[in-house]
Amino acid sequence: MSQATNQVAQTMRLALIQMQVGTDMLANLAKAKTLVRQAAAAGGQVILLPELFAQQYFCQVEREEFFHWAHPVEQHPFLEDFGHLAAELGVVLPVSFFERSGPVYYNSVAMFDADGSRLGVYRKSHIPDGPGYEEKYYFAPGDSGFKTWSTRFGRIGVGICWDQWFPECARAMALQGADLLLYPTAIGSEPADQVSTPNTPAMWQRAMIGHAVHNAVYVAAANRIGVERFDASSCTFYGHSFATDYRGEMLCEGQPSFEGILHADLDLAAAREFRAGMGFFRDRRPGLYQALLTLDGQV
Amino acid sequence: MSQATNQVAQTMRLALIQMQVGTDMLANLAKAKTLVRQAAAAGGQVILLPELFAQQYFCQVEREEFFHWAHPVEQHPFLEDFGHLAAELGVVLPVSFFERSGPVYYNSVAMFDADGSRLGVYRKSHIPDGPGYEEKYYFAPGDSGFKTWSTRFGRIGVGICWDQWFPECARAMALQGADLLLYPTAIGSEPADQVSTPNTPAMWQRAMIGHAVHNAVYVAAANRIGVERFDASSCTFYGHSFATDYRGEMLCEGQPSFEGILHADLDLAAAREFRAGMGFFRDRRPGLYQALLTLDGQV
Repeated sequence: MSQATNQVAQTMRLALIQMQVGTDMLANLAKAKTLVRQAAAAGGQVILLPELFAQQYFCQVEREEFFHWAHPVEQHPFLEDFGHLAAELGVVLPVSFFERSGPVYYNSVAMFDADGSRLGVYRKSHIPDGPGYEEKYYFAPGDSGFKTWSTRFGRIGVGICWDQWFPECARAMALQGADLLLYPTAIGSEPADQVSTPNTPAMWQRAMIGHAVHNAVYVAAANRIGVERFDASSCTFYGHSFATDYRGEMLCEGQPSFEGILHADLDLAAAREFRAGMGFFRDRRPGLYQALLTLDGQV
Repeated sequence: MSQATNQVAQTMRLALIQMQVGTDMLANLAKAKTLVRQAAAAGGQVILLPELFAQQYFCQVEREEFFHWAHPVEQHPFLEDFGHLAAELGVVLPVSFFERSGPVYYNSVAMFDADGSRLGVYRKSHIPDGPGYEEKYYFAPGDSGFKTWSTRFGRIGVGICWDQWFPECARAMALQGADLLLYPTAIGSEPADQVSTPNTPAMWQRAMIGHAVHNAVYVAAANRIGVERFDASSCTFYGHSFATDYRGEMLCEGQPSFEGILHADLDLAAAREFRAGMGFFRDRRPGLYQALLTLDGQV
């Protein structure tokens, strides 16, 4: 924690918080803060909480009342509390929250550096929609563009949940020089009436392991656990929070029953050297990628 | 084999040929043809040979004499033989070869449909360069753009070896409607003097498993095996040819000692349905991807 921000960080101790979220927002916030303190006490320098950890995952259902939980960044009921906590503990803290900006609602992350300063806000770019994940009802697709920030402990990019399936998002953050890609997440079972349930924990990890290898960067995700119910609707969040190194090797992983903190020690200098030697960023062919800027591939 | 080309294929039996390549080109071609016949006899409809299977992997070293092995598509010593074989057996056959076009040399694949017609040629877009893989000496970066073709047995995209590490290439082929991405490959050990040897078979598979999940498409690679020597230089090719389904589940895999044919039965209709339901291609944000059309991310 003595590293100055004008030096390039060589190592980083990452902490991932996997937690169950209940119906009482104040209890959720208190639990999150307790876990952040524990993570910092164990040496965590960058601490990742799950997506929208203040509330149960309300996108299970579509209800007007849940829009009340959204607030503007500058008048937010708990965001700056986490900034103060980051400063007190000297840790980097991305904080997922439900953002309102005028009449528009976003699924956002505020990035707090280890001195408590808010480096910026990323708005989730890719919005899912399907049974139990009705996010298109709540969130406008983010307009912030992909973000990375140079923090006290390294250059960090943050995507949010569904973003983690999109190679474009990971590549864009890697092109900005990210040492580490973080994904706060809320993912669990599909509704029981789905005919075939794919092995989504494995798929979900494979998608991000792919980003780690393609970009030779560290990647991590923090997910929630436990059952959440909204009347007849329920979802079992499956944990499996994890971090991989820049070759896709697992560093830590949380089983679905585990509530607590996962740690991983990252060698950012070794990753940078490996990344240069692999030559992926030397050999890209931007002149051939025009189709990627279309929805249907027609150029 | 009774499917007409104007119908959309629902299933496909894929065959991957994993083979050792020796110093005698005619023996290599004969072995390749024998294995293609065996693959077809076992029901293979789309049959993938490794990269540049006619010769030992000459890119281990940089020598002018090896340019003699390159020929124009229209005056090629063995390319049309494989087209005739495809027609005789009624199989789809992508054939990797060293292409010369005027004074320019490419690492290319010709795609033969099951009636023997040559659907087109793809020129490897991403060219590696490092100890034992001196491809930038031999090959100009391909100018064909990424290719997929509607064959008798489904829509198939082909990348070549190093292309398999690049999410842009896989995405571009998926955007063209590929049911299956194929990667003929020549990959093996790093030179022994490298300080740390990463677990590249696992990394190599993870990169492509990532493509399978990101695009909800089937993916397969065929690699060579065995030791090849050029004077003091040697490389041990590691096999591990494999196919995964559209969720990244392994369907077949060849151990490094295995020479022969791997089969996988693909349910293209199920994959198309799953792909639509996941919504990846619904939720992409091309307006945010401009940085991908640059080398250094500056837009």
